[in-house]
Amino acid sequence: MNPGMIFYILSWVGCFSGLFLLPSCIVALIYHEPQGFAYLGVAAFYILFGFLLTRRKPSSNRFTAQDGYVTVALTWGLISLLGSVPFWLSRDIPNLVDAIFETVSGFTTTGSTILQDIEALSHCSLFWRSFTHWLGGMGILVFVMAVLPLSSGKNIHLMRAESTGPSVEKLVPKVRQTAALLYLIYVALTAAEFILLLLGRMPLFEAITAAFATAGTGGFAVLNTSMASYSPYLQYVVTVFMLLFGVSFNVYFLILVRKFKSAFFYEELRWYLTVIAGATALVVCDIRHLFPTFEEAFRQGFFQVVSVITTTGYASTDYDAWPVLSKSVLILIMFIGACAGSTGGGMKISRFLVAGKYLRAEISRFRHPRQVKALWLNGAKVSDDLLRSVLVYLVAYLLIFVLSLMLLTLEGHDLVTNFTAVATTYNNVGPGFNLVGPVCNFSFFSPLSKLLLSFDMLAGRLEVLPLVVLFSAVVDAASGRLRRMKAER
Amino acid sequence: MNPGMIFYILSWVGCFSGLFLLPSCIVALIYHEPQGFAYLGVAAFYILFGFLLTRRKPSSNRFTAQDGYVTVALTWGLISLLGSVPFWLSRDIPNLVDAIFETVSGFTTTGSTILQDIEALSHCSLFWRSFTHWLGGMGILVFVMAVLPLSSGKNIHLMRAESTGPSVEKLVPKVRQTAALLYLIYVALTAAEFILLLLGRMPLFEAITAAFATAGTGGFAVLNTSMASYSPYLQYVVTVFMLLFGVSFNVYFLILVRKFKSAFFYEELRWYLTVIAGATALVVCDIRHLFPTFEEAFRQGFFQVVSVITTTGYASTDYDAWPVLSKSVLILIMFIGACAGSTGGGMKISRFLVAGKYLRAEISRFRHPRQVKALWLNGAKVSDDLLRSVLVYLVAYLLIFVLSLMLLTLEGHDLVTNFTAVATTYNNVGPGFNLVGPVCNFSFFSPLSKLLLSFDMLAGRLEVLPLVVLFSAVVDAASGRLRRMKAER
Repeated sequence: MNPGMIFYILSWVGCFSGLFLLPSCIVALIYHEPQGFAYLGVAAFYILFGFLLTRRKPSSNRFTAQDGYVTVALTWGLISLLGSVPFWLSRDIPNLVDAIFETVSGFTTTGSTILQDIEALSHCSLFWRSFTHWLGGMGILVFVMAVLPLSSGKNIHLMRAESTGPSVEKLVPKVRQTAALLYLIYVALTAAEFILLLLGRMPLFEAITAAFATAGTGGFAVLNTSMASYSPYLQYVVTVFMLLFGVSFNVYFLILVRKFKSAFFYEELRWYLTVIAGATALVVCDIRHLFPTFEEAFRQGFFQVVSVITTTGYASTDYDAWPVLSKSVLILIMFIGACAGSTGGGMKISRFLVAGKYLRAEISRFRHPRQVKALWLNGAKVSDDLLRSVLVYLVAYLLIFVLSLMLLTLEGHDLVTNFTAVATTYNNVGPGFNLVGPVCNFSFFSPLSKLLLSFDMLAGRLEVLPLVVLFSAVVDAASGRLRRMKAER
Repeated sequence: MNPGMIFYILSWVGCFSGLFLLPSCIVALIYHEPQGFAYLGVAAFYILFGFLLTRRKPSSNRFTAQDGYVTVALTWGLISLLGSVPFWLSRDIPNLVDAIFETVSGFTTTGSTILQDIEALSHCSLFWRSFTHWLGGMGILVFVMAVLPLSSGKNIHLMRAESTGPSVEKLVPKVRQTAALLYLIYVALTAAEFILLLLGRMPLFEAITAAFATAGTGGFAVLNTSMASYSPYLQYVVTVFMLLFGVSFNVYFLILVRKFKSAFFYEELRWYLTVIAGATALVVCDIRHLFPTFEEAFRQGFFQVVSVITTTGYASTDYDAWPVLSKSVLILIMFIGACAGSTGGGMKISRFLVAGKYLRAEISRFRHPRQVKALWLNGAKVSDDLLRSVLVYLVAYLLIFVLSLMLLTLEGHDLVTNFTAVATTYNNVGPGFNLVGPVCNFSFFSPLSKLLLSFDMLAGRLEVLPLVVLFSAVVDAASGRLRRMKAER
């Protein structure tokens, strides 16, 4: 472990979190909102104080994979706290725990909210909510990396720990250029959606926040009705872009370098589209009788399937009132999630592919015990390390899921509320069913449960491992100190 | 694959299934029940026909692990069909699908029933129901093995495939003697419970059937009220014996050879008792206010926790009316299940231990990347094969669970009913919640859903792999034949 280096990176994160607040200040200026002063003051403080702390250079340059995980875990904890302060100081969210929940929900691109009346918020706070989605989607440290000159050895560990999915490849030889390239694709796609929304006569402010929230597959809306009040054209645009942001960004890179064939035959992409098509077909058949036309049933089914599998969590209708088959399909695809290397959450298609191939290979070993077949994913061999990481993830994922569920149950709501509340936050979707359904919110939970669900959102976004490694490092350090204290006596 | 040998073993299974029916004939004789003729006729037919088929000796003696799995899968399929015929012919269960469901539920020691009025059944059918629990608990082929002289090479593959838990050890050098020893312990414990129940003034017939159903951790009762109408003494006796039958039989072997220390420090046992103590404490606190005395709350809580974790499924009260925390704990321990090498179902404590240790080892690799630590379980090293088998089991288990859940959902009941119906049959518990709660039954499901749940019971009892291997062997054979047909053209 290299605490000096971790502190150095965290100082930069603090400084950047101030910079991230500046667009909200501009929004406040445009709308003449007094809340802007809170944003401006906090931003100035973060920038100055963070920058001062970065003057303390680390003594060693060593940076291991463990350091990478710990840094990422601490970064996300820090930025969640820092990001909640303006909500709280501006009195838009007067309760600090609520403000933390909302900020974590924003950065982790979950989209669960404690707000009972979203439209009562100031524009600068609404903007900040949506902007956290956009920042969290591609990754805070990926952004810092793209801007800041850190040595390449650090970068790859940070990138591995922060990006989604089991395997993270560099698109171009240098990690920093990869980070910049990812953000370039990200900005371009966001801009494209923004323009298409404007063309559909969505108001400017709604279009920009919707583009941010779709890009990060977050799901915070600025209207209480989420996406239900928009025209079919706008709903289709949002559906298509949710789907696009759930695709692995490797695919866009392949298209960029004109390897169209590789992009088209990208294995994870084909399965992703297959699952969406299958789920949409099931849901549309199941809800057909609820809508006057087939078009509307299709639009609503398609919208919700894409919204949930990409873990965006926008609602175009109250799908908690749909029949049980549709609800079960939606709960199932919450867990499946989007592609690895996208901004989406969940367990990721590629992990299921690896696990499925592993299962098939193991079964075929009964017939040919001495034959060892290599697994392939997206045209590359699956290394033993990758396979192990998928299996460890699966075990750790289930463990945290069950523990969270039992802790939340102590509050005593019904089984479906508890299960889907944990599932939707842990998979970074947004709404669940029953008390946390698409027309409800998370405000009724106790402060402890809100913090628990905030932890789940972070654990889900960071794919469990960084938090587990941080926890084990803390336990290790504490027991080491205890041992030294005993030895000294 | 050696189809001749598999056919030979299956012929013996057919013959034995006739022998298994004979005790029911005696019961019919005692109670002067005409249904006994159905049992006698079917038994005679099975014995004669099965014995005739065993005259065809297999040409080769080769027997692989794959053969073992396929034989076990086919054995359980066969005996479920054969065992359902007397229910059907005696008109005690006039619907064949219902009869199959009930028989599978019996042999797999699940205890889910389609009967709306249990007490309307004849005594010989009630006896057969409970006796299937006792036979299925320790294993059909383990019984056949203990009696029949098969070569040792076959035995170990059959025993591995049929016994519960990830690792199956021979207690004594010969597999056949191990099988006999297991049944000896089994008979002794069953007899002990039977006597203690008689001492508590339970009627003879109820005592013998209750002893069978507890021993197999099955849960079929002969009264409509399950265990609710019995005295506290009897409820405690049943609780203690359910707990005992959920313990790995290795522990009893260690006690038998006077290795008390090893038995006491058997790792899985300690965790099993810890989980039971923790779950009981939680549930008793949660339900204390529902009962007049602490003793009653403790008795009911302890009874249900042990009943569910050992996957017996007896009900001493309508625990579906308990608060949500207790219900969640019960659902959770359904999945955990009993010890490996016991008659209980579920995923087994030892699999969780292996998975947990694997997780810890993998996390410590972040700090010491070059260190490879061996895992230990119950005082023995965990081999790579064992670890792999646990991980493969976990993946296959989840896959089948999710597929079953989606298929059952097509019938359209509520989320909790669907989820717990699959969970309770797949883990061989018995009752679930809502429509399949402890005071309800499974009669309302469609025939297709009943067959699906029967499949889940078999998959759970055989711990998934035998069915998967059988399936893949069938697919393989079919595709091989297709290829040959194409080549011939």
